[in-house]
Amino acid sequence: MIKVDKIISATWIYTGEDQDKVLFDHSIVVSDQKIRDIQPTIKAHEMYEAEETYQLSDHILLPGLINAHTHSAMSLLKGYADDLQLETWLNDYIWPAESKFVNYDFVRVGSELAIAEMIKGGTTTFNDMYFFPEATAEASKNLGIRANIGLVVMEFPSNYANDPQEYLNKGFEFRDHWRDNKLISTSIAPHAPYSVSNSTFELINTYAEQLNLTIHTHLHETRNEIEESIKQFSSTPIERLSELGLLGPKLMAAHCVHLSENDMYQLKSNGVSVLCNISSNMKLGSGFVDVYQLINNNINIAIGTDSSASNNRLDMFSEMRSMALNNKALTMKSEFLKPSEVLKMATINGAKALGLDHIIGSIVKNKYADIIAVNLDRIDTQPCYDPLASLVYCADRSSVEYVWINGDTKLKERVLVNIDEIEILQKVKSWKNKINQT
Amino acid sequence: MIKVDKIISATWIYTGEDQDKVLFDHSIVVSDQKIRDIQPTIKAHEMYEAEETYQLSDHILLPGLINAHTHSAMSLLKGYADDLQLETWLNDYIWPAESKFVNYDFVRVGSELAIAEMIKGGTTTFNDMYFFPEATAEASKNLGIRANIGLVVMEFPSNYANDPQEYLNKGFEFRDHWRDNKLISTSIAPHAPYSVSNSTFELINTYAEQLNLTIHTHLHETRNEIEESIKQFSSTPIERLSELGLLGPKLMAAHCVHLSENDMYQLKSNGVSVLCNISSNMKLGSGFVDVYQLINNNINIAIGTDSSASNNRLDMFSEMRSMALNNKALTMKSEFLKPSEVLKMATINGAKALGLDHIIGSIVKNKYADIIAVNLDRIDTQPCYDPLASLVYCADRSSVEYVWINGDTKLKERVLVNIDEIEILQKVKSWKNKINQT
Repeated sequence: MIKVDKIISATWIYTGEDQDKVLFDHSIVVSDQKIRDIQPTIKAHEMYEAEETYQLSDHILLPGLINAHTHSAMSLLKGYADDLQLETWLNDYIWPAESKFVNYDFVRVGSELAIAEMIKGGTTTFNDMYFFPEATAEASKNLGIRANIGLVVMEFPSNYANDPQEYLNKGFEFRDHWRDNKLISTSIAPHAPYSVSNSTFELINTYAEQLNLTIHTHLHETRNEIEESIKQFSSTPIERLSELGLLGPKLMAAHCVHLSENDMYQLKSNGVSVLCNISSNMKLGSGFVDVYQLINNNINIAIGTDSSASNNRLDMFSEMRSMALNNKALTMKSEFLKPSEVLKMATINGAKALGLDHIIGSIVKNKYADIIAVNLDRIDTQPCYDPLASLVYCADRSSVEYVWINGDTKLKERVLVNIDEIEILQKVKSWKNKINQT
Repeated sequence: MIKVDKIISATWIYTGEDQDKVLFDHSIVVSDQKIRDIQPTIKAHEMYEAEETYQLSDHILLPGLINAHTHSAMSLLKGYADDLQLETWLNDYIWPAESKFVNYDFVRVGSELAIAEMIKGGTTTFNDMYFFPEATAEASKNLGIRANIGLVVMEFPSNYANDPQEYLNKGFEFRDHWRDNKLISTSIAPHAPYSVSNSTFELINTYAEQLNLTIHTHLHETRNEIEESIKQFSSTPIERLSELGLLGPKLMAAHCVHLSENDMYQLKSNGVSVLCNISSNMKLGSGFVDVYQLINNNINIAIGTDSSASNNRLDMFSEMRSMALNNKALTMKSEFLKPSEVLKMATINGAKALGLDHIIGSIVKNKYADIIAVNLDRIDTQPCYDPLASLVYCADRSSVEYVWINGDTKLKERVLVNIDEIEILQKVKSWKNKINQT
């Protein structure tokens, strides 16, 4: 008998490796933070002796969900400014509030709030972009979630840095400090084509190539962004980034709501990943992404929530359901998208976009043990004729009962492990009172 | 001190009576099934002595949600046939399964499953249409939910009845038997223009007028329905019903996804209520309702889930969020719709459609005490800058912690009162095995 840390047994396992195949009565063997084996449950218990065992007969196990685009700290601005278009929302509400309030503590508390919400909803990795990345990294380390932290760069000064070079310097200092932490990885994150100059984009591109970093940016979020770009640069933001050499398999483009035929061709031919944020695009009145055409062009699509200031949830179950349902309605094809296709977007496609698919995104030997267990034996998920359909169409985030990240138990019977929700809520309320007073 | 049954005190109360006004630190006084008074909490405790008191300092109270269109028994077919267009779904899957399996017990068990899910999600009234209405009524009475039961009529035989006259006879027999039950009301429910003949519609209209009954039907759900109607009757289904004299303030039209200018005019000028089922329309690839135009035409809009066979949830929180977000994206106007507008659709507008707004749909003296309490002090709803925005954008059905129907406590700290979930699940699984075997 080989000694291991955990044997997690469940009625169903969706590995994410083999289309919509679901294993029945299998176990995941976890040791040293990683998935060591996947075996039929009887065999797993013959082969391995575990310190902890989980018998989840009502549950399906699946890879932890990957929230491919968010600004976790902005959870403190959840509900601060609703029912507004992106430009008004940013210029008249979010940016003024940020310039008044954003500091290390704001980012730390906001990130903790976001991370607690994400873990409870089955997210095990998030792709972030915000100021004071060290605050988000500290929160991630302490609460125990995997994070890809964007080193934000923009032309405009903020409470964090004054100019592109200072953003970059602080970012690289952060990166050096955190490079050995297994939960934290980094991207360079030029904020958006409308807030970053050509020369800064070129500088970023050089750094990204030298340091082998992925790039995370907002791209084609609104019609207005595209119209302004055409006025100023005589090209769409995607065409402009193409000319600057930014497009490539390392680019993660958040949004891509409005695309010309040539924009689509540029994304496709350069292997750019698109991070869809369906709820946020709807809430800000930006429109619907053309997921059907993106898929027809074999473009890698991952799913993000965007921030709580424009969603107002960090709820990947809500996003998965909207991804499936919206696209059935938009195409008037009810077979587009199927549950397994949506699950891929929320797991392995996210890992691919982040350049982390060799270590996370599916349940396979030697990947990190980022796993969630969803109860399919509740009033809202029974009868269960097909576990993947139950998962995407019936279950919601409250059905997530166990979460393991990097092999550690982070949620157990829906209670966060080693995370003090009450303390987080107290800090959140104290920030809320400060923000509300002004 | 006046003796009463309950004093329910909460930080916030959304009465639904006065646009988006929210009362702070008020109490609802409940006696003899009804709302007896609404007072500031201190005053309520000075004026009344209650058998039971609730101090809900983390919660907002609001009128119980009204699910304006569903087929509760079809919860047994939840996930039975996904990712299909309406016609294929009905003709090749749902109707064959129904003709094999539907009987009193199927409807009873399916309704119990649906009702348990609805109460847990804050629904206190549902508007149903299905075979064996007595089974749904028995389930509603036993579990303690308010139901408006549609007396289904169609040309085709089913396990329930053979021809329109038999459907009507059985329906009226049902109505006579249940007319004194305070939780149960009835409508005549011609299934749809494509399954009901002109002469049957005329007969129904006569009965509805004589008995002063509302009429509940499916209308303009798909493009195909409209095209076939034009071929057969040289008019859209709405034009046809208009000619037959069916359109009026007592008509509840479920769906209305595709409307010509004249269809819209007919709905408006006749005061027809539209029951929107956004998720179901998306899931079956039917399209999006033009809510913007419906509102511009002052048409009363209520929200339904449709059945679990095409949703696959009976989750009014999910529907409210989709109603707001979809329409912001469709119109590209982020200010359309606001949380208070959506809340109205899910409460008082539903009551108006059902002709029950004199007894339910808002928190006002002498209406029945159908009230829910939603916790806004959780990780996913904090910070809370605006309780109505938190309710619609952040909260989900798992935030519903208390439900009172007709003055009775039906959900307490998220546990159903006097409803045995385990027993319901056992009966559901036994039906699932029967259905799955064939």
